[in-house]
Amino acid sequence: MGVVVPLRETRSEPASIQNLVDLTAGGMEAVNQLILSKAGSNVELIPEIARHLISSGGKRLRPMLTLAMADMFGYSGEGHVGLAASVEFMHTATLLHDDVVDESDMRRGKLAARKLWGNQASVLVGDYLLGQAFKMMVDVGSLEALQILASASAVIAEGEVMQLGAAQDLETTEERYMQVIEAKTAALFAAAAEVGPVIAEASDADRAHARAYGMALGLAFQLVDDALDYGGSAADLGKDTGDDLREGKITLPVILAIRRGKPEDREFWSRCLEERDVRDGDLDRAIAIMQETGALTETIERARAFGAEALDALRGLPAGGQREALAEAVEFCIARVS
Amino acid sequence: MGVVVPLRETRSEPASIQNLVDLTAGGMEAVNQLILSKAGSNVELIPEIARHLISSGGKRLRPMLTLAMADMFGYSGEGHVGLAASVEFMHTATLLHDDVVDESDMRRGKLAARKLWGNQASVLVGDYLLGQAFKMMVDVGSLEALQILASASAVIAEGEVMQLGAAQDLETTEERYMQVIEAKTAALFAAAAEVGPVIAEASDADRAHARAYGMALGLAFQLVDDALDYGGSAADLGKDTGDDLREGKITLPVILAIRRGKPEDREFWSRCLEERDVRDGDLDRAIAIMQETGALTETIERARAFGAEALDALRGLPAGGQREALAEAVEFCIARVS
Repeated sequence: MGVVVPLRETRSEPASIQNLVDLTAGGMEAVNQLILSKAGSNVELIPEIARHLISSGGKRLRPMLTLAMADMFGYSGEGHVGLAASVEFMHTATLLHDDVVDESDMRRGKLAARKLWGNQASVLVGDYLLGQAFKMMVDVGSLEALQILASASAVIAEGEVMQLGAAQDLETTEERYMQVIEAKTAALFAAAAEVGPVIAEASDADRAHARAYGMALGLAFQLVDDALDYGGSAADLGKDTGDDLREGKITLPVILAIRRGKPEDREFWSRCLEERDVRDGDLDRAIAIMQETGALTETIERARAFGAEALDALRGLPAGGQREALAEAVEFCIARVS
Repeated sequence: MGVVVPLRETRSEPASIQNLVDLTAGGMEAVNQLILSKAGSNVELIPEIARHLISSGGKRLRPMLTLAMADMFGYSGEGHVGLAASVEFMHTATLLHDDVVDESDMRRGKLAARKLWGNQASVLVGDYLLGQAFKMMVDVGSLEALQILASASAVIAEGEVMQLGAAQDLETTEERYMQVIEAKTAALFAAAAEVGPVIAEASDADRAHARAYGMALGLAFQLVDDALDYGGSAADLGKDTGDDLREGKITLPVILAIRRGKPEDREFWSRCLEERDVRDGDLDRAIAIMQETGALTETIERARAFGAEALDALRGLPAGGQREALAEAVEFCIARVS
């Protein structure tokens, strides 16, 4: 089961972010050191939980965007490291709070922090990481970067609240769904990319291209994630497939499956998502409906369209190793659906 | 039941913050307008929850500190309004998350937001308000004020985590307790006071005095709060008396009552606070032990000592209406125990 969607028609090797990893290796070492030092605290629980999350093998895609985008404009200071670490902390704080809100048991193939240390600690350590993120940004000293990241922080929370309001509501429109994922996911990708040229004092046009790249990449990333929730295996994902179904989340695969499906399926979706009554075999049935209706393929098509938009935005940016690596990252995000 | 502790030996009228309210009335109107506009969002749940909290009659002591401290140095700009509103948002976000962590049912005499809208919305709207707080600070444009408030944000969360770790632990020392309240409560009072002279570009000495005032006031405030939890009536407090006992929180009244009490009381404290088995009549018994041992009176004595420290710090600051009103605020905070 699953959908393979190559970005290019022919491709000899699987898409990879190895070039991006290699190009940003030096900066990422500094980012990782900063992250570890800022996740420290005399309060025992804090480094324990922070390290659990930090060492659990996230790809660190967001901070790499910041570093590569700053490098692209020949930035030679240290500020991009602080901004990249801030971005990763904002992301980590969001994960901690999300797991509490979603009542998730797993995160990246490990028990979620809330299962190990409880909801209370997850909420508060998330707050701590957010506070540390702002401290790091302030230390960098760029008011423009601060504005971009502070706005992203409010927008992300707004998106999460919007998602909460839309949960269990089969009337959720595609437009509403797009607003949610733009806010909860793409806004941070956009901010992470934009602060690169900002700290490098690049032109307004360059900032706009970087932001547009991040935004489109983030949308593609989340669309793929939402398809994967009905696709890959738990081992591949590092999270439980079917989470969204169990949590009553109305994602694009569901919206399309309902719109295109048989009238009698509606009762099934209503029971699962509105009444939150998900039984054995329901995930398989949901996936079967999505395959019949082409809902998963269509979701990936949309992701591919945003991927193309991201590549277009890159064309406005200076050519070179960074641009190539960032283009590969687009393909990598979409090719995760395998 | 309750303890009356006047700050001065003789006093004709009850302590009041009316002078502080009057002095900051113009600025606070601007703060309140800013708060209402920044608590807005197209996402329905956000203004609903924010307004519930904002209109629920908090005293707005923290933003008044910021305004009065800026006024004291003749500040004539608008930046203090944004900083004051940020401080109140940080406080409001903390309340939302605290109620989730403490599983509180009431807040300021109303049902807690989490009882009305659920824990999930409380966590996420708290995050949104924190993001908006940072946006407002960034708009003000003072990197020094940003540094102070961002640090406070991390320290507050650190204090909350520390409190969580100390909960249900009868071995919690007085020193540990003081660390917790300094971080979770006094740090924001200190930051709120300090950003006043900072935005007014006052001297380092003035900033240090303002910070010391806020810190000592915050400690006195929390000590009184912790005494009130075993003292006033629920109607006076706007929260349930006995919350701390039910939540297994080890506050100074408990620490002193254990240290000074009979060995056989220890079993009682252990059952209530460690085993979280609080029965009918236990709150009365706890209060009786605290009165026998003088634990409540001693807690208020400590508050009074910090009150004196706050007044000392004020003596280093310019004389005038602001200084007088800020001195009365100290007395007001302590005289709440009535």
